[in-house]
Amino acid sequence: MNIANRIDCLGTETAFAVSAEAAAFAAKGNHVYPFHLGDMNLPTPSTVVEGAVKAMRDGKTGYCPNAGIPQLREALAENISNSHGVKYGMENVAVQPGGKPVITKFIQAVMNPGDEVLYPNPGYPIYESQIEYYGGTALPYGYKENEGGFAIDIDAIENSITPKTKILILNDLQNPIGAEASPEEFKRLAEIVREHDLMVLCDEAYFEIRYSGKSQSFVSLPGMQERCVILYTFSKKFAMTGWRLGAAVGPENVISVIAKLNVNDESCSNHFNQYGALDGLTGDQTEVMGLLDVLKGRRDAAINALNQIEGIHCVTPASTFYLFPNVTGAMANKGFTDYDVFRKAVLEATGVSFCTRLHFGRQLEGETERYIRFAYSGIDIDQIEEGIGRMKTFLES
Amino acid sequence: MNIANRIDCLGTETAFAVSAEAAAFAAKGNHVYPFHLGDMNLPTPSTVVEGAVKAMRDGKTGYCPNAGIPQLREALAENISNSHGVKYGMENVAVQPGGKPVITKFIQAVMNPGDEVLYPNPGYPIYESQIEYYGGTALPYGYKENEGGFAIDIDAIENSITPKTKILILNDLQNPIGAEASPEEFKRLAEIVREHDLMVLCDEAYFEIRYSGKSQSFVSLPGMQERCVILYTFSKKFAMTGWRLGAAVGPENVISVIAKLNVNDESCSNHFNQYGALDGLTGDQTEVMGLLDVLKGRRDAAINALNQIEGIHCVTPASTFYLFPNVTGAMANKGFTDYDVFRKAVLEATGVSFCTRLHFGRQLEGETERYIRFAYSGIDIDQIEEGIGRMKTFLES
Repeated sequence: MNIANRIDCLGTETAFAVSAEAAAFAAKGNHVYPFHLGDMNLPTPSTVVEGAVKAMRDGKTGYCPNAGIPQLREALAENISNSHGVKYGMENVAVQPGGKPVITKFIQAVMNPGDEVLYPNPGYPIYESQIEYYGGTALPYGYKENEGGFAIDIDAIENSITPKTKILILNDLQNPIGAEASPEEFKRLAEIVREHDLMVLCDEAYFEIRYSGKSQSFVSLPGMQERCVILYTFSKKFAMTGWRLGAAVGPENVISVIAKLNVNDESCSNHFNQYGALDGLTGDQTEVMGLLDVLKGRRDAAINALNQIEGIHCVTPASTFYLFPNVTGAMANKGFTDYDVFRKAVLEATGVSFCTRLHFGRQLEGETERYIRFAYSGIDIDQIEEGIGRMKTFLES
Repeated sequence: MNIANRIDCLGTETAFAVSAEAAAFAAKGNHVYPFHLGDMNLPTPSTVVEGAVKAMRDGKTGYCPNAGIPQLREALAENISNSHGVKYGMENVAVQPGGKPVITKFIQAVMNPGDEVLYPNPGYPIYESQIEYYGGTALPYGYKENEGGFAIDIDAIENSITPKTKILILNDLQNPIGAEASPEEFKRLAEIVREHDLMVLCDEAYFEIRYSGKSQSFVSLPGMQERCVILYTFSKKFAMTGWRLGAAVGPENVISVIAKLNVNDESCSNHFNQYGALDGLTGDQTEVMGLLDVLKGRRDAAINALNQIEGIHCVTPASTFYLFPNVTGAMANKGFTDYDVFRKAVLEATGVSFCTRLHFGRQLEGETERYIRFAYSGIDIDQIEEGIGRMKTFLES
């Protein structure tokens, strides 16, 4: 069959190729330390599982409303109102089969062809893919490493804005970097958004994956709520990646367009799973908190081990389950200049599998430091320590 | 927020408004006979439910491959190969969150802006919506009532084809009409497809919902397999409408593009439900056959009752769970000229809720006969007889 021209503009997640390579390496009888996965090897809390099973057995197996069951929309609106310090109602919530659908539906709902869209790079590769697929112009903005972590390169944002710039994609508590904006960064960004009359996608997939402090949402800044759509997902907080359940939360006129896209694209999200998610949101939070404890232990073990390797340093993010170690020295020490050659050499020599900066966008102009991404959501502490120990031996040899 | 211009071209299912009206009428304390729903009030077979529950409890709660778990892709390929008399492998199958996503993904994968697409009218309204949303030209083709049922107006198809016509959407075993193509119709259509080098979407949502005879697939005609993508869904056969699980089945190059759209749109379909569907496909079929028995009983009761009303006649489809009674005489007898006025009057007077021909596309030129659609998938026999009996009293008064 002939393929339509638009598919030439469709990107993908190149990280899946890393999974395939790791699987092929393991299939040869090798041991793999899976740091490449953004998936979780932790069980979904039993409140969610039992709620979904009960609903399934109770016959919640027919269609539900396109925007989701009213109970879940109401509970999400209340939950997010409480955590964000702003007021949402169920009319501001459209349930989705995952967090990811919010990206394409937001872009479709508000971006015209020719519009410029600011998006993070390194960042989740689907932003760029969907901007370009629907005929927009993708304007990348980067992050600068400082003593405490990473800060958005706001000067670069200001310099790249033109009258055609209409949208800012903001992924605070960021994948892959783990960066978190300071109140000053948020304030400057909000000024830019107001000055240039931008709409904002707030990808908050990791809003509740944090180990100290409290997440702040960009929507809570003055005037921002009416300009922002939040990408909400059950995937990380409730270890529900494979359930595919999330929501778009924002101004009613955009949410109603997104619900109309639901009618066209998939009718509705799975019915009975929404009851499980409802029980997860409103029920006992002990198991949910337990997930965070496990992840925090892994984070600390991984950072500790990485920082013992010569030529690697890694800051400590308070959120996400990703680390973004700077490996400039380690690559230079071993004579590596190419990210992919480095990645494959480490996999072959040690079994440690990870993504590099290149899996999260093209390198930006003037970018000299080298980074890789370690996910610790799918690997236990003993394997973290053993794997990074093997990496140390290899890189320091 | 400003809404993008493309949303002006996005259609919807107006039948949802009928549901809302029926719900509002019921909320006033009235009894409703729900013939408007394409949903099912029958339980999902326990093989599927227990398979999904087991997989959920076994931790199949992380991401699965974008195109679906290999076991389900293989089982579907084998199942469809057997029922269709052609050979498919797992590389020809991309699992989807429902049958509906196949419509948008097929259109996106193969239709360029400006291409003309033939689609059935009356027909499922999302075809027209997605053709126009992605910049194609929607060319409707109709059906002609004859003694035994309805036949595709193939002359109209031939007359409307131009060099820009690239795609035929074929929904044999049709919603809303219940029409089934004869071998002669299939043969003529295949000649047209070959002569004009068309690609075909075979919407086979009701392929296994049949009460006598055996379904034939258009893909089994010579040269058609490489030109066709099948829309497969678990929704009807397994009473799984609210589970949202289906598949695109077709040539490998299109299926790989559709899987790339999966990566962008929703990552993957729900993981554990795919194990339930696998058990449904490969396990004991007693409950599945039981669903058909129930539906057949309802079909016969509804047709019998409808044909007792003066000014209504209704043919007996061997497939689907829809009836498309001709109500030209009944409307004329009561002085109705407007579909919506007629529909609302029947609802108000009797509680019988149904969709009309207008919920399945704009009226075609020269169309004089009047039809309504009765779905019997969501209503029990006693309610079918009682409701249609009340309708008889009203229409003959």
